[in-house]
Amino acid sequence: MRISNRKLDHLLITTYYDVNHSVTTLLEEVLPVPRAAPEASLDEVDPSITLFGKRIAAPVIVSGMTGGHHIALEINRAIAEVVEELGLGMGVGSQRAAVKDPSLIDTYRVVRRVAPNALIIGNIGAAQLAKMSIDDVEKLVSMIEADALAVHLNVPQELFQPEGDRDFRGVIKAIEKIVEKLSVPVIVKETGHSIDPVTVSKLVSIGVEYIDVSGAGGTSWVRVEELRARNAGEASLAREASVYRNWGLPTAVAIVAARWAAPTACILAGGGVWNGLDALRALMLGADAVTVALPVLRAYADNGVDGVMAFLSRYVSELRKGMLMVGARTLRDLYATDYAL
Amino acid sequence: MRISNRKLDHLLITTYYDVNHSVTTLLEEVLPVPRAAPEASLDEVDPSITLFGKRIAAPVIVSGMTGGHHIALEINRAIAEVVEELGLGMGVGSQRAAVKDPSLIDTYRVVRRVAPNALIIGNIGAAQLAKMSIDDVEKLVSMIEADALAVHLNVPQELFQPEGDRDFRGVIKAIEKIVEKLSVPVIVKETGHSIDPVTVSKLVSIGVEYIDVSGAGGTSWVRVEELRARNAGEASLAREASVYRNWGLPTAVAIVAARWAAPTACILAGGGVWNGLDALRALMLGADAVTVALPVLRAYADNGVDGVMAFLSRYVSELRKGMLMVGARTLRDLYATDYAL
Amino acid sequence: MRISNRKLDHLLITTYYDVNHSVTTLLEEVLPVPRAAPEASLDEVDPSITLFGKRIAAPVIVSGMTGGHHIALEINRAIAEVVEELGLGMGVGSQRAAVKDPSLIDTYRVVRRVAPNALIIGNIGAAQLAKMSIDDVEKLVSMIEADALAVHLNVPQELFQPEGDRDFRGVIKAIEKIVEKLSVPVIVKETGHSIDPVTVSKLVSIGVEYIDVSGAGGTSWVRVEELRARNAGEASLAREASVYRNWGLPTAVAIVAARWAAPTACILAGGGVWNGLDALRALMLGADAVTVALPVLRAYADNGVDGVMAFLSRYVSELRKGMLMVGARTLRDLYATDYAL
Amino acid sequence: MRISNRKLDHLLITTYYDVNHSVTTLLEEVLPVPRAAPEASLDEVDPSITLFGKRIAAPVIVSGMTGGHHIALEINRAIAEVVEELGLGMGVGSQRAAVKDPSLIDTYRVVRRVAPNALIIGNIGAAQLAKMSIDDVEKLVSMIEADALAVHLNVPQELFQPEGDRDFRGVIKAIEKIVEKLSVPVIVKETGHSIDPVTVSKLVSIGVEYIDVSGAGGTSWVRVEELRARNAGEASLAREASVYRNWGLPTAVAIVAARWAAPTACILAGGGVWNGLDALRALMLGADAVTVALPVLRAYADNGVDGVMAFLSRYVSELRKGMLMVGARTLRDLYATDYAL
Ligand SMILES: Cc1cc2nc3c(=O)[nH]c(=O)nc-3n(C[C@H](O)[C@H](O)[C@H](O)COP(=O)(O)O)c2cc1C
Ligand SMILES: Cc1cc2nc3c(=O)[nH]c(=O)nc-3n(C[C@H](O)[C@H](O)[C@H](O)COP(=O)(O)O)c2cc1C
Ligand SMILES: Cc1cc2nc3c(=O)[nH]c(=O)nc-3n(C[C@H](O)[C@H](O)[C@H](O)COP(=O)(O)O)c2cc1C
Ligand SMILES: Cc1cc2nc3c(=O)[nH]c(=O)nc-3n(C[C@H](O)[C@H](O)[C@H](O)COP(=O)(O)O)c2cc1C
Repeated sequence: MRISNRKLDHLLITTYYDVNHSVTTLLEEVLPVPRAAPEASLDEVDPSITLFGKRIAAPVIVSGMTGGHHIALEINRAIAEVVEELGLGMGVGSQRAAVKDPSLIDTYRVVRRVAPNALIIGNIGAAQLAKMSIDDVEKLVSMIEADALAVHLNVPQELFQPEGDRDFRGVIKAIEKIVEKLSVPVIVKETGHSIDPVTVSKLVSIGVEYIDVSGAGGTSWVRVEELRARNAGEASLAREASVYRNWGLPTAVAIVAARWAAPTACILAGGGVWNGLDALRALMLGADAVTVALPVLRAYADNGVDGVMAFLSRYVSELRKGMLMVGARTLRDLYATDYAL
Repeated sequence: MRISNRKLDHLLITTYYDVNHSVTTLLEEVLPVPRAAPEASLDEVDPSITLFGKRIAAPVIVSGMTGGHHIALEINRAIAEVVEELGLGMGVGSQRAAVKDPSLIDTYRVVRRVAPNALIIGNIGAAQLAKMSIDDVEKLVSMIEADALAVHLNVPQELFQPEGDRDFRGVIKAIEKIVEKLSVPVIVKETGHSIDPVTVSKLVSIGVEYIDVSGAGGTSWVRVEELRARNAGEASLAREASVYRNWGLPTAVAIVAARWAAPTACILAGGGVWNGLDALRALMLGADAVTVALPVLRAYADNGVDGVMAFLSRYVSELRKGMLMVGARTLRDLYATDYAL
Repeated sequence: MRISNRKLDHLLITTYYDVNHSVTTLLEEVLPVPRAAPEASLDEVDPSITLFGKRIAAPVIVSGMTGGHHIALEINRAIAEVVEELGLGMGVGSQRAAVKDPSLIDTYRVVRRVAPNALIIGNIGAAQLAKMSIDDVEKLVSMIEADALAVHLNVPQELFQPEGDRDFRGVIKAIEKIVEKLSVPVIVKETGHSIDPVTVSKLVSIGVEYIDVSGAGGTSWVRVEELRARNAGEASLAREASVYRNWGLPTAVAIVAARWAAPTACILAGGGVWNGLDALRALMLGADAVTVALPVLRAYADNGVDGVMAFLSRYVSELRKGMLMVGARTLRDLYATDYAL
Repeated sequence: MRISNRKLDHLLITTYYDVNHSVTTLLEEVLPVPRAAPEASLDEVDPSITLFGKRIAAPVIVSGMTGGHHIALEINRAIAEVVEELGLGMGVGSQRAAVKDPSLIDTYRVVRRVAPNALIIGNIGAAQLAKMSIDDVEKLVSMIEADALAVHLNVPQELFQPEGDRDFRGVIKAIEKIVEKLSVPVIVKETGHSIDPVTVSKLVSIGVEYIDVSGAGGTSWVRVEELRARNAGEASLAREASVYRNWGLPTAVAIVAARWAAPTACILAGGGVWNGLDALRALMLGADAVTVALPVLRAYADNGVDGVMAFLSRYVSELRKGMLMVGARTLRDLYATDYAL
């Protein structure tokens, strides 16, 4: 199967099927303690933050999702337009396809063209990284003038893909090399089955400063592969995958564990952080910023660039109102705010 | 939109739609320990209490709900009749409308006319207060010969009202001024999204002695605004509001937290305290009296003044029977009674 | 309303309607730790116990339910036959009716006639007791040659009966007098809304040695009165009752609390102890014997004396098998057995 | 009823009816902490273990289920073929039938004929054992050239079988004798109602080194007997059984308790360990290997030998992938891995 076909499969399945974990992020267990008289104005609430040397209007980044297909180009363009306008950040999907087939480069490059000022993040799988030279990796960065490169770990997904990787050796070494040599910062992220605290420690020890925990409770890639295997008539692999649908630490647990393991790292919280109230909770638990994937894709499917704009501006508005309601004018205030469990 | 129209909207929506929080007050977690042989007679059980210098037959106050509309006049008259007869207390809804349009004054004044002896409480929003002189505020009091004035905080509601306030600065200062100067005591209340313990402390430090915590678990004003936004075609605001429907500390938590933050203040417990058993639990947790809103409105919608009479006398009867069943002849006894969680 | 009519109402409502508490006894939270190799034979398992000077084959007593009506006579006869044959114990319902109308005496006396050897327990309400001389009470005992007299507390039920008592003073004193003077032991029991540990202590201090805690989770008499009030068109009283349906400590809690308050008293556990496994759990929690009411009545309604026989022999068989499966040959063994919560 | 008929009943009922406990194993409460970057290859993951002197490819043993009937012969043959090919282990069902009727020996012997190298385990009830000489027992072993003999305890099942044993004395002594004298190791197992920690201690003290806890959460033999009793018109026994359907410690609890009671024994974990993820959890809790019964039978019913092959290879694959995802290359690694509760 060609990568771009698999990518199309993924877009269709995630858009139209129930691909969630059937457990929650546990973020709903976090009860923010309100401030009934916040002595502030909504105007004053400023959730902006500097990440990778860029100031963004809110700590909200659209996770890397796509590229490598003409449909991907449209999706990436739409997200980029909105992100540029709202002053947020976004990632592209794995750039592996473009490495193999340069004709696909435009499906990624569109992002920077449309969003010259926004925070843009490149993307490559950890397994691919191990096979690439530092120059090859720099090409991914320059392809989209990326502000940072996200390296994704996705062992669970690979294991339930018929054509997936089965050998995950050398990943840490490859990340270490990149962190040391690359011209931009490196983020290590999962894709919905969480990065655990032991791995967080190890990553910190090799110099990684940015980690997206991407925990359980949102999109489950094992579930996506279950559906794909079922469609392909691979009943046994589908059943294996169904057993592991909910693999990983729930996002709320993953945030707390990562913060505990890496008190000074920059923790991004993804995986089911799907509205501004959940973002508020993730930030209160210690995340520096949140990442969100699937709902953005669905907003696009629903109503194109307007759908994405509606979703992301509502998301930021929800976050700002939540901040006001707990009496936080800035993220720094927010980190100091009480919650109950 | 004119205030009185919004008021009518609110009456209709709260009467006919499901406007509850979809979480509970947590009062149901309080297990009163019975006294199987109470050595008392129901006659002897006396839940009367002195509030704002008036003796009321039971610590039950109908929360401020309405005014400013000819329908409001009928509702207020009905509640006032019952409250006068049963010897209870009641509040009127926000008197802001009457400030703007004196022709509406009668829709409030009816209360004192019908209930010359009952405990009557005025009402104004904290945001309005900041814009009023002390003389203006005294006019609200004299309009209904109020025994006390309730100042309501309702940040969450305002934030999800298209026309709502967005600036909440100066509220504390305005309350401080009023507390110092007004001829009657001031109650600070929320409208169903709770007053938190930090705000309770702050209020106490500026001289507030009466606080109605109005926690989550009963009427959710964010939910009401969600429904109103949806009707008005404001889909995005409606969705934002839906995310925050359950905002606030559940009433049981809010009572305990307020009592802890203000050991000697008078704590009123509202928000989903909808029958005499829940009232019993709220009092056992440390509240001095309870307030109840929505079910009174619905009892009126159901059967006019008779509906209100049936509801409130049942409520008091339930409370008195509950007191007897835990062996408490008075509220003082009740505060000393055991419960399990 | 004549007593016997109310008694008939009670029989019909409890037999055909859902009259349970809608909370459980919490006995299901007790996890008996099995003994996989008990080194015993079922024959050897002997749950017999001496109560009120009589040896009974198992610590299972049918609670007092009826009398005072020709239907009651048939029910009492059936239960007595079975109890005599199985060597168990039983109570009769309140003998108040027979005090007022001696023609009804036979509906109680039938029990002793049919069960000359069984443990038989008389019954009177605590409120009635206060109005009777010691000689009158002795007549209740002699009426059925009772081995003990149960005095029932039922404040919650009375409060939601239109014609019920409202004055519960003098109850403790009346019990104290009876305990001192009566020729047989006195049991104090509730009827499904529990006896709390404070009352247990008080009862012990006035000489009571037998207490049936009759907790929440089985038959709710407040619920029965709710249904009766609803039938009688007393909508408001019915609603009050519905609020208090689940009043009381769940039976499991009531047992532990009573044992804690009265380490050496004889604790009987009733209220929803409806099969031999729940009986096992109640005994493991510290009860000396169990009492069971409603399922016996329903077994009679289902299949007369044969239904009662089937129910009670199954109940004892379940208990004996449970004892074997935790490795207990006797009740003494059982009290020393482990459980987890 | 002849044994072989009862055996057929059991096969049919367990295959086609809901015979689970209606409580869970609690294994689902174990949250394995992932390793997002395991630095290993799936090839390297080696769950092999030496049991009873034989190396098996994974710690997965098909529990003893059948024998003594011509259908049993086919089932045993199918399981044996798969087990031989995958390098796993299996038990046969109780060999009691073959003791009574030597013409049935082939229905067991087929296993060793088809699986000359696999780990094969004989089976006899503890109650039978007490009546057999050591030579008789050796015959069971030699009948199938067993690598070990499983002695099953099944008190709960027997108690709810009309024709079941009621006397369980002498069991411990009989096991002690066998452990001392038999030419192969002895496993003591339950059949789904758990072996408790006290019994584990006792077994260890008489020299037993292998214990299959077979806890609650999978097949409930009391439930099977309930269905059989109901079919046979034994309504009362069926109801007794229904009360005890969930008897026993849930498997997760039983594993932890057994490991605590016998730190150095070999603990096998059965009872509802029905996929590779639950196996992973059971091993993380301290089991040395897992046993699985009912799903293998159903896989056979579904698709004969191919069904069994599909089930067991999927099971092992799930386990190996789970090991990789927690970063364990071997079982020794796995025992040292973290989990949260
Ligand atoms: C359609 C789709 C494609 C994705 N492709 C990638 C990818 O190429 N690289 C990557 O690192 N993550 C990818 N992800 C994972 C997301 O970045 C994110 O970590 C995950 O979906 C969890 O976030 P969510 O619950 O908000 O969807 C993809 C997600 C979706 C929905
Ligand atoms: C129809 C309606 C109108 C209300 N209007 C006011 C108001 O004008 N001022 C105010 O302080 N609270 C107002 N409230 C809030 C109540 O006073 C109360 O705090 C809240 O409804 C929670 O109590 P409940 O759960 O018993 O309804 C209103 C409530 C209702 C149902
Ligand atoms: C039909 C019926 C009549 C009863 N009448 C009496 C009574 O006269 N006196 C009494 O002490 N308890 C009476 N009870 C209460 C029972 O003795 C028992 O305490 C209560 O029903 C809880 O037990 P259960 O859950 O097993 O039904 C009656 C119960 C029933 C079902
Ligand atoms: C059809 C069937 C027959 C069984 N027969 C036996 C048996 O003869 N001897 C035995 O020790 N266990 C027997 N068992 C019990 C299993 O070995 C096992 O302990 C129990 O089923 C729990 O495992 P499970 O939940 O994976 O089914 C049998 C189980 C099944 C389903």
